[in-house]
Formats: sequence, C-alpha cells, structure tokens
Amino acid sequence: MPAKDIYHDSCKQALIKDGWHISHDPYNLKIGKKDLFIDLAGEKLITAEKGTQKIAVEIKSFVSPSEIRDLEVALGQYILYQNVLNRIDPERILYLAIRDASFLKIFDQEVGQILLENQVLKLFTFNPSLEIITRWID
Amino acid sequence: MPAKDIYHDSCKQALIKDGWHISHDPYNLKIGKKDLFIDLAGEKLITAEKGTQKIAVEIKSFVSPSEIRDLEVALGQYILYQNVLNRIDPERILYLAIRDASFLKIFDQEVGQILLENQVLKLFTFNPSLEIITRWID
Repeated sequence: MPAKDIYHDSCKQALIKDGWHISHDPYNLKIGKKDLFIDLAGEKLITAEKGTQKIAVEIKSFVSPSEIRDLEVALGQYILYQNVLNRIDPERILYLAIRDASFLKIFDQEVGQILLENQVLKLFTFNPSLEIITRWID
Repeated sequence: MPAKDIYHDSCKQALIKDGWHISHDPYNLKIGKKDLFIDLAGEKLITAEKGTQKIAVEIKSFVSPSEIRDLEVALGQYILYQNVLNRIDPERILYLAIRDASFLKIFDQEVGQILLENQVLKLFTFNPSLEIITRWID
C-alpha cells in the first residue's frame, strides 16, 4: 500500500466538512493480478430523486522541484485509475485533489489550462489550513 | 533537457530501418513558459496522394521495480504531450515506444489491456537487439 500524501488528512477533513461520508481510506481496485490504491472514496446524498453521488479522490501535493514532473505523475495515475474505475465501479467519479497553491502553479498556466479545456481530468482544490474545499472543476 | 532513455538509440535505428526520416531529436514543444521535450519526431512519405505522415515518439524503458509506477509515468507524459501537441502541431501523432519485453509485462495484463481497449494511447514495440519495429498499435 503506498504512503499517504502529506495533505491526506486535511483533504479528508475538508471532504467531511463538505458533507461527504468517507467510505474507503484507501480505496482498493483489483485488476487482474494488480492492486491499485486510490487515496479516498466517498459518498454524498444529493437529493432524494438524484440519489447518492459516489466519488474517488487522488490527493497530490505537488512539492517536487519540477511542476511538470509532478503534473505528469498525477495525470498518469488519474488516467490509469479512471480507466480501471470505469470498468469496475463505473458510477464512481474520480477527482484529483490539490491545494489552492498547487492549482495556481500549474492550472493557471497554459500547460494546465489545456488539460482543463480538453476536460482531461476533474479536480477540486482545498485549503489545507482551513480544511475546506475551495472549488470543484468538472 | 531530460536525459535520454537507455533504449533511445536502438529505437531511433529501428525507426530509420522502418523508413522514417528523423526530423527532431529531441522534439521541443514550447507551451507558455514551459518547455517540453519529446524524445523523437519523424516523417515518412506514405503515398503521393496521402502525403507525409508525421509522428512524435516518447521512448520508455520500463526498468523500475514497479511496473505500475512505470506505466503511470509513461501514461502521464503521453497524455500531457498529446494534449499540447494537439494544440501546437495537430497533424503529428504521438506514439509511446516500448520494448517487446515491456509490452508483455504490462500490456498483456488486464491493467494494460484496458488502456488499449479504451484507445487511451497509441504505441509501437521494438526489439532493441535487432533494432527493428515489431508492431504498431493505433
């Protein structure tokens, strides 16, 4: 099982404050002989009609010297997990969770904007000190 | 500029034997303030009518102890480069280049098969001793 991201607990608290029930920590995906571990999975009752929304969350701290390298690793995990999740648990939506500061460093720049415009990934940002979610990008 | 993959030269020779003219080694993509470097770019005249096919090639050796980690890193680079390439040089098709042995380790297993079935990436395999391309997967 991989080591927890340093912002794991503050991100988890932010989700709980936002009304999510954390159902898995971590969330284990078995695929063939391989085990994949996504950091968290959670559920939230949206409305009685719409039912329960299910998410999986991969938390990334973006603290290495190379933002591009951090982005590549985060993106690779996201795409792999998303494809496996679509097969095993297709109702669950995968989000990348990053701090506000990481969002500004990567996704406010052209290289990150291209990924958001092309809807390559879904993400939310959180403030680790206040332990709150600050935006959702679908 | 990143270090060359250990199979860079044998992959390049395999492409040349397959009739490709290597136009860039490496191929530099500028996006905003960031520089990305894809390992190779090449061109080949298909037929007089169809004109020239243009490719970019990212070579990955898959030699770390974790195949999943290698796959995540390769996939992250591929998706990032592909999205930037679509913006800057949309006629050029990106391929991941891996050895036959790496293909068997990853893409013959369920986790890799899902990626191929979902057409997440295009790749070719090569034999580094014989310096030949052994298959194209589009």
